[in-house]
Amino acid sequence: MDIKHRKVNKRIRITDKNNRPLSDLEIGIHQKNHSFLFGCGAFDFIPYVMEGGESQKQITDSWLEIFNYGTLPFYWGNYESEEGKPNKDVLMKTAQYLVDNGVRVKGHPLCWHTVCADWLMKYDNETILKKQLERIDREVTGFKGVIDMWDVINEVVIMPIFDKYDNAITRICKEKGRVGLIKEVFDRAHADNPDAILLLNDFNTSINYEILIDGCLNAGVPISAIGIQSHQHQGYWGKDKLCEVLERFSHFGLPIHFTENTLISGDIMPGHIVDLNDWQVDEWPSTPEGEERQVKEIEEMYRILFSHPLVEAITTWDYKDGAWLKAPSGFIRLDGSKKPSYEMLKKLVKDEWWTDTKVKTDENGWATVDAFKGKYVITVGEKSVEVDLENNSEEVISL
Amino acid sequence: MDIKHRKVNKRIRITDKNNRPLSDLEIGIHQKNHSFLFGCGAFDFIPYVMEGGESQKQITDSWLEIFNYGTLPFYWGNYESEEGKPNKDVLMKTAQYLVDNGVRVKGHPLCWHTVCADWLMKYDNETILKKQLERIDREVTGFKGVIDMWDVINEVVIMPIFDKYDNAITRICKEKGRVGLIKEVFDRAHADNPDAILLLNDFNTSINYEILIDGCLNAGVPISAIGIQSHQHQGYWGKDKLCEVLERFSHFGLPIHFTENTLISGDIMPGHIVDLNDWQVDEWPSTPEGEERQVKEIEEMYRILFSHPLVEAITTWDYKDGAWLKAPSGFIRLDGSKKPSYEMLKKLVKDEWWTDTKVKTDENGWATVDAFKGKYVITVGEKSVEVDLENNSEEVISL
Repeated sequence: MDIKHRKVNKRIRITDKNNRPLSDLEIGIHQKNHSFLFGCGAFDFIPYVMEGGESQKQITDSWLEIFNYGTLPFYWGNYESEEGKPNKDVLMKTAQYLVDNGVRVKGHPLCWHTVCADWLMKYDNETILKKQLERIDREVTGFKGVIDMWDVINEVVIMPIFDKYDNAITRICKEKGRVGLIKEVFDRAHADNPDAILLLNDFNTSINYEILIDGCLNAGVPISAIGIQSHQHQGYWGKDKLCEVLERFSHFGLPIHFTENTLISGDIMPGHIVDLNDWQVDEWPSTPEGEERQVKEIEEMYRILFSHPLVEAITTWDYKDGAWLKAPSGFIRLDGSKKPSYEMLKKLVKDEWWTDTKVKTDENGWATVDAFKGKYVITVGEKSVEVDLENNSEEVISL
Repeated sequence: MDIKHRKVNKRIRITDKNNRPLSDLEIGIHQKNHSFLFGCGAFDFIPYVMEGGESQKQITDSWLEIFNYGTLPFYWGNYESEEGKPNKDVLMKTAQYLVDNGVRVKGHPLCWHTVCADWLMKYDNETILKKQLERIDREVTGFKGVIDMWDVINEVVIMPIFDKYDNAITRICKEKGRVGLIKEVFDRAHADNPDAILLLNDFNTSINYEILIDGCLNAGVPISAIGIQSHQHQGYWGKDKLCEVLERFSHFGLPIHFTENTLISGDIMPGHIVDLNDWQVDEWPSTPEGEERQVKEIEEMYRILFSHPLVEAITTWDYKDGAWLKAPSGFIRLDGSKKPSYEMLKKLVKDEWWTDTKVKTDENGWATVDAFKGKYVITVGEKSVEVDLENNSEEVISL
């Protein structure tokens, strides 16, 4: 698979402070971070940041060895379970900790019919919408500079016809229509932070979602990237379906984020379950055969996604087993030990797709660097400088 | 079923030319046309208007006994089979004949991937779109005043993924996206004739079509009415599905037209056929049992649609058996004889839902008229006047 688009092939010239070329010199090219977003659910950082603890630190430290991108929960029903008392402090501290560790943070989600605040239901639709938009103002403005990436609205294809229980967001989506509500919430988030990356996110990868995106873009909704969920508790999509989904959602020319990926290392959930939340089990163990299957599936999937030019992010939903649905969905087991999938992904992200090398300058101080896009430290002897290697334009670096 | 919205309950005052009330006088209220559009495919008028003939005239005359609304074919591949040689004369004469007989005419369709002009395929996409828009200019402007109602674009849900054969319209729909192409063609048709009724039309009644309409409306596409096809060669939808479709497409608050209705009076097409065009048979007879079934189904369907406040038009696709797919889909048989469905529908349209009555004015010349909306002739003795009875506002009529 072709991954040339993930790399730079760049001519750099090394000079001293007086712009004299440093010729025939060995220079070190040390990658510090990826441009590609290797993401994972970062919910586990909350108890660690708030309460500390060695076992919790082992989890978050091992997370930080692979990932540069984390999703934090902003479910309205949890974030503000009592009206007017948002849980900002906890989320801000956790987000800041992640940012301090070189991790980009996405807030998930600003608008969703599930895990919604029950207290909203006492209001009329006009007031619900007003409070939804004010909520967006509060979070997007309040976290600006720390969180500049948001799943603005989640699962809109089903939103107005969701009928498992009454909720405030389904009510306003029914009234305003899908595109109407999407436009309201995106316009507001965009006004609050014009530089933010704003995602539409859905588990529905059918033609419904394509048509929804098409309508939104023609209606001027400022979507930065298309979010695709891929919870595969019922079995791996396989290469064909994955490529077919990529092909269909590439038509828009927008960046694609795989926002919620799950591949489990235990028994597969039966196919007849329609809403994954209906599968309630006492325990769902990770098995050796399951772990072997999981590592192969994750590797194939990440390789395919990394090779696709429009994919800019892959987020695995659960870092540790036993989170959502008690599924063996993580890179680490319930006891905190690492699965084969952890070792495999770390090898991909920090070795095969990672650049740590030496090059030599020619007599005019030029060297060619072939490197994965990202943040680098370039060293010459004792001296070093941080640079972003993002494109192939020539660059002069003075040390 | 409530059909109050189809009627006026109107106070009219009858005066002489000197504004003196004509009191205690019997006046006749004679309906001449419906506001509701009772439509049918009017393709059969083309051979009659162009070539005449008694047997052809029997067909068109019996058609005119029921319907006030006809669809004429503007399939690009037939209308302009050779580039630059449109079949305008034939269509104009036929449309004019219908208009002269009190029939409103709709052109079908201005843009569609099927029966498309093959010669378009030699052009690049930019040129195809240009020619598509010029084609819209030509037809919408050229027929203005005779045809002011158009199926602007047909079957867009499937359009960009239609893969039975290559065609020019699927190519440009793929490139511009569904809503992008819809917007282009509607904007053009609307600019050409701002007073025209412009329809989006589809056989797909799933959530796909709902989302497509939602996107179009939010993108500012000037859709006048939602067109819903209901070819039921594979069996009657039944009341539940019909009401469910009506409910879902009512959310937009736009007028709804049932644009292509089919209920057959013979054997039902097997359910495993996905594209109706794949069902190719040598003959498909109308049967006595089929005709009894057809009349019941058509009656139930028309009653439900007539009772729905947003439905403004019902068009049965084939007037005579043996047209599309050789199906027994008409109101008249292959030999021209009338089926029970013809007699039943005529009774509904020209009797049960028709007003021809007398009222008496009071001492001040006032009378109350309870009548189906439409065009009327009001008579007093030898005198008569034409009026539209469309709403409940009081009106003074001087004779």
